Amino acid sequence: MYYIGIDLGGTNIAVGLVNQAGEIVKKTSVPTRAERPFEEIFADMADCIRKLLSETGVKESEIDSIGIGTPGCIDTEKGILIFAGNFKFGKMVDYRALMAKHFDIPVYIGNDANVAALAEAKVGAAKGKTNAIMITLGTGVGGGIIIDGKIYEGHFSAAGELGHIVLVKDGQQCSCGRKGCWEAYASVTALVRQTKEAMQANPDSIMNKTPLDAVSGRTAFDAAKKGDKAALAVVDRYEDYIAEGIADMINIFSPEVVVVGGGISKEGDYLLDPVRAKIRGQVFGSGLLPDREIVAARLGNDAGLIGAALLHA
Amino acid sequence: MYYIGIDLGGTNIAVGLVNQAGEIVKKTSVPTRAERPFEEIFADMADCIRKLLSETGVKESEIDSIGIGTPGCIDTEKGILIFAGNFKFGKMVDYRALMAKHFDIPVYIGNDANVAALAEAKVGAAKGKTNAIMITLGTGVGGGIIIDGKIYEGHFSAAGELGHIVLVKDGQQCSCGRKGCWEAYASVTALVRQTKEAMQANPDSIMNKTPLDAVSGRTAFDAAKKGDKAALAVVDRYEDYIAEGIADMINIFSPEVVVVGGGISKEGDYLLDPVRAKIRGQVFGSGLLPDREIVAARLGNDAGLIGAALLHA
Repeated sequence: MYYIGIDLGGTNIAVGLVNQAGEIVKKTSVPTRAERPFEEIFADMADCIRKLLSETGVKESEIDSIGIGTPGCIDTEKGILIFAGNFKFGKMVDYRALMAKHFDIPVYIGNDANVAALAEAKVGAAKGKTNAIMITLGTGVGGGIIIDGKIYEGHFSAAGELGHIVLVKDGQQCSCGRKGCWEAYASVTALVRQTKEAMQANPDSIMNKTPLDAVSGRTAFDAAKKGDKAALAVVDRYEDYIAEGIADMINIFSPEVVVVGGGISKEGDYLLDPVRAKIRGQVFGSGLLPDREIVAARLGNDAGLIGAALLHA
Repeated sequence: MYYIGIDLGGTNIAVGLVNQAGEIVKKTSVPTRAERPFEEIFADMADCIRKLLSETGVKESEIDSIGIGTPGCIDTEKGILIFAGNFKFGKMVDYRALMAKHFDIPVYIGNDANVAALAEAKVGAAKGKTNAIMITLGTGVGGGIIIDGKIYEGHFSAAGELGHIVLVKDGQQCSCGRKGCWEAYASVTALVRQTKEAMQANPDSIMNKTPLDAVSGRTAFDAAKKGDKAALAVVDRYEDYIAEGIADMINIFSPEVVVVGGGISKEGDYLLDPVRAKIRGQVFGSGLLPDREIVAARLGNDAGLIGAALLHA
C-alpha cells in the first residue's frame, strides 16, 4: 500500500509517492501559477500522480489515500480550504470535490505547517516523541503542534499560528495585521530587514560587499562566521528573537522537543547552540527541570509532502 | 460515590466533599501555614476530610478518590510535587505517600491553575466544550489548557504557564525571572502598579481618595465607572494587555472558548466587552472565521477544589 502526498505551495506543487515507512519512492513537481482556476491546478496534480504511477508501476488500486498540504485555514473534516491568507487561492475551495473528479481515492487535507510538523514527528527529527512543537523560519514563522502523535487542529482547524503571538507590543507591523508578532522579528524576511539596517548603519561591515537587493538570510550568518562585528550583532539579536519565542512555546506546551525548520535551520548548531543557551534562563522552572530538546528539522523541503501523505493515519 | 477535592493554597487549604455531578456537598478550610513540616499540613487535610465525612454521614468506603490541586510543577503519574516556585513547599514532596498515611484511597494531584481549568470545562463556564483555555488573573496570570476534555500536562507536567510568554521584549521584570512576561502586565499585581503610577501622575484623579497602600485591583475600575479620565486610561490599557495575550492564545490554540477567571473577572462584561472588541482585529483570520468565545469563569474560588475532585476521570 502507498500514499500520495501533495505539497501545494505558492510557487510549486510537489507531488510524491510515499511508502508505508513514510519514505518517498518517487516525486515530481509543477509550477503552481496560483492565479489560474483551481480546476487547472488540480488537473496538474492529477497528471503528476498518473506520471508517478506509470513511472513506478504502482497501480491506482494500491493507493490508500491522497493527502494535500496547503497554506491557509481549512476544514479538515469536509476537506475544504476556508481561506489562505496572502495566497491567491480564494475562499471555500472544496479540495476533496476537485480531486474526486480525477480519482476515486480518499482525500485528506492539512495546513502546510501542520503537516510538516507531522512528518518530523513521525519520521523526522521528532520521531518517537509524543508531544512536539515545530516552528518553520521562512518568509513567515510557521507553526505546528503535535499532541499525542497527532496534529492539534483546534476549532476551525485554526490552531498553530505560532508566529502570530506578540513579542514586542506595538512593534513592527506584521503581515497578519497585528503589530509586533514573533514572525515580524524571527522570520527570514525579518532577518533580511535587520541585516540591511545593520549594513546601512555600519558602512565598514563586510556585509556591504553584498548589494542591498541581493541580501538573503545567509548574508549576516556568512559575515558573522568571518568575525564581522556588525554581522555578529545581527546574528546575536536574531537568535535572541528566536529564543524568546521558543521559550514562550516551552512555557506553554512543555513539549518533549522543539523542531526548528526552514532554510535557516541548515545553519544547525551554529544557530541552535546560542539559541539553546539563551532559552535556558528563560523557561519556567529553569534549572529545576531538565532542558527540553531543541533540534533542527531533518526532512527539509520534503516535510510538507511526506506529512501530507501521512494525514490518513 | 463521592470525591474529595483539596485546594492547597499558599494561605488556606480548602477541602470539599464533591458528588458525581461535580457539586460541592460540603466544604471546610484550614490555614496552610506553609512553613510547617508537610506531615502537619497533610494531617490537617486528613482531619478536614474526617470532619466532612462525619458531618455528612458519608462513609470512607464511599470515597472514590482524593484529588489535590497544588501550586507548582508536579509529576502527576507519581503524585510528587517537583517544585513550587515562590511557595515554601520544598521540592520532591511525595503527596501520595503523605496522604497514604491517613487513607487507603487513590490520590491524584494536579497543578492548581490546571485543575481550575478542568473544573470550568467540566461543570463551569466551558461546560460541554472540548478545547478550552483558562486564564486566571490574580497575583500572577495562571493558565490551564483543556484538550479533548482533559488537562494538557506536557512533558514534566510543566505545560500551561500561559502567563510567562513575553509580551513586551525587555520589559517589566517578571517574578519568573524573565522580562516583559504577559503576567507582568495583565496580573492584578500589575494593575495595582499601573494604578499607582497613574495616581501619582494625575493628582486630580479621584483614585487618589484611596491611600496608596490600600490600592487594589478594583481602585481603577471603580473610578473609571465614575468617569475619571485617568482611571479610564488605566482600565483601557489594562484591557489592552489582557486582549493581546488572549489573542495570542487564540492564534496558538484556536480554542472553542477562553475562560477568564480570578477576582477581576467579577467585573464581567464591563471588563470583557472591551477585551472582546480589542481581540477581534488581532486574531488570525479575523473576519473570516467566527469569533472564539470569551467568557467569565463561573465557579469562583471553588474551581480549584472542584477541579481537584474531578482529577480521577
